[in-house]
Amino acid sequence: MKLTILGCHSATPRWDANPTSQVLEIKGHLFLIDCAEGTQVQLRRFNVKFSRIKHVFISHLHGDHFFGLVGLISTFRLLGREADLHIYGPKGIKEAITLQLKLGKSWTNYNLLFHELDSNEPELVFEDEKVIVTTIPLNHRVYTNGFLFQEKENERKLNIEAVKKANVSMSYYTKIKQGFDVTNEDGVLIDNKKITLAPPPSKSYAFCSDTVYFPQIIPQIKNVKALYHEATFLNEHQHLCERTKHSTAREAAMIADEAKVGTLILGHYSGRYGNYETFRIEAQEVFSNVELAKDGAVFEI
Amino acid sequence: MKLTILGCHSATPRWDANPTSQVLEIKGHLFLIDCAEGTQVQLRRFNVKFSRIKHVFISHLHGDHFFGLVGLISTFRLLGREADLHIYGPKGIKEAITLQLKLGKSWTNYNLLFHELDSNEPELVFEDEKVIVTTIPLNHRVYTNGFLFQEKENERKLNIEAVKKANVSMSYYTKIKQGFDVTNEDGVLIDNKKITLAPPPSKSYAFCSDTVYFPQIIPQIKNVKALYHEATFLNEHQHLCERTKHSTAREAAMIADEAKVGTLILGHYSGRYGNYETFRIEAQEVFSNVELAKDGAVFEI
Repeated sequence: MKLTILGCHSATPRWDANPTSQVLEIKGHLFLIDCAEGTQVQLRRFNVKFSRIKHVFISHLHGDHFFGLVGLISTFRLLGREADLHIYGPKGIKEAITLQLKLGKSWTNYNLLFHELDSNEPELVFEDEKVIVTTIPLNHRVYTNGFLFQEKENERKLNIEAVKKANVSMSYYTKIKQGFDVTNEDGVLIDNKKITLAPPPSKSYAFCSDTVYFPQIIPQIKNVKALYHEATFLNEHQHLCERTKHSTAREAAMIADEAKVGTLILGHYSGRYGNYETFRIEAQEVFSNVELAKDGAVFEI
Repeated sequence: MKLTILGCHSATPRWDANPTSQVLEIKGHLFLIDCAEGTQVQLRRFNVKFSRIKHVFISHLHGDHFFGLVGLISTFRLLGREADLHIYGPKGIKEAITLQLKLGKSWTNYNLLFHELDSNEPELVFEDEKVIVTTIPLNHRVYTNGFLFQEKENERKLNIEAVKKANVSMSYYTKIKQGFDVTNEDGVLIDNKKITLAPPPSKSYAFCSDTVYFPQIIPQIKNVKALYHEATFLNEHQHLCERTKHSTAREAAMIADEAKVGTLILGHYSGRYGNYETFRIEAQEVFSNVELAKDGAVFEI
């Protein structure tokens, strides 16, 4: 899994600070997560092969998370895209996008498939043989979801020596890797565990932005390999969190600590702070493995 | 009058090529003309005091001319704007903007006043003591207007020597500058022309983008000091103009020549050309005074 941060600042796009957008490369997919104004330029700047994007996940309908979507959709049209594009986002996103395309008489030549969300419970929104994506309902000023990206459990590995010893036909190897017990050439049922090795652990990434400190998400993101959690404020401005429904670096770290995640990645910094290293220092008082998002940063998960 | 080009390329925003937007400083106003994605970043980049913008003129509802407007409106809100903002643009623009603000529960704290346009005749859209703005109906794939910005005729200058000789009371000086004949201290009516000098010529700027070659606009833009006219293509691609409803550099020059404008500024270049100097060369075969727009260029008119 490879995560590229296209933008990780809050509020308004500036010359050197882009609002939220990131791409996650996972099992051959290129998933776009949020799409602030300027995202298409950031995709070009960081040489992301963005024609490969087939699924876009939008957390909520604040401008700093979705005003770049209609432009990206239009650019795909101008570039002659033919592949379907799936958009997952809050109810209303379809109307917002299609109204603008209609006004410009700029309908796409490719299929634009909207999956509108309005549940307050986690929902499975995408699944194939290798990956599952689930919403993480958050608590913000408007309806908001984070997203949990999970690799499906990897196949077990054949213990070649044991398989041969057990006298199992090669035609069963696929079944064995999938975890099934099989009957050998002598008609004996062989316990799968005895002829396979445990698979490498499957990875997961949770994107949680924007949200107030919301420990209800902890069971769902337990043990994820990497958690991106918004940290708009430092603790000195914690009093602003309840009204704005944002979190501090310390609160993000509390979530990471309780969920026992591998790495915490902080982002969505308020523009009031000059030095983001203070976010890391504050978070590390609670949780040690902290990374700071910055535009253009790449995280191998 | 000072024109700052924020973006002048067609189609999609790129790292080094922004779609259409410009600011015109005229008689104390800062008018924003079109607002592609990324305009607010360009305003910051070129140090435009954009809180001074009170009027935005949108030519048409293609993304490369208006996808940045909702973001700019949102940023004004975040910056605590209180002044009214007037938006002039095609019918539908109000719904497109307000729907997005509604979805984000992000209503502005300042007044947002939409002036929707749907006439195919020139319309006076703004007027105060010093400036007049009129639409220039164009011919594009969707309903489109250019805009004509005119300084009102300047006041005449007092010919101080002649005024004194004519024995006119100082209390009449304002009236005299406004062009009135006045009665002197001896009760004699004095011909205004005899005690004043002609005012400096008033200036005008015409913005015409996007449009196919459309000579119907010539009477309206006759003698303007500066004309910005789109030149998407070079003559070698003239065959693309009818379908796309765009112009060539040569056609822009033909308009400039027939309208006897002062300076022709070309822009809205297609991304297929590497070197824009060829646009100037092609246009100059028809009309000599040609400038090339580029992002960040400033023209004193």
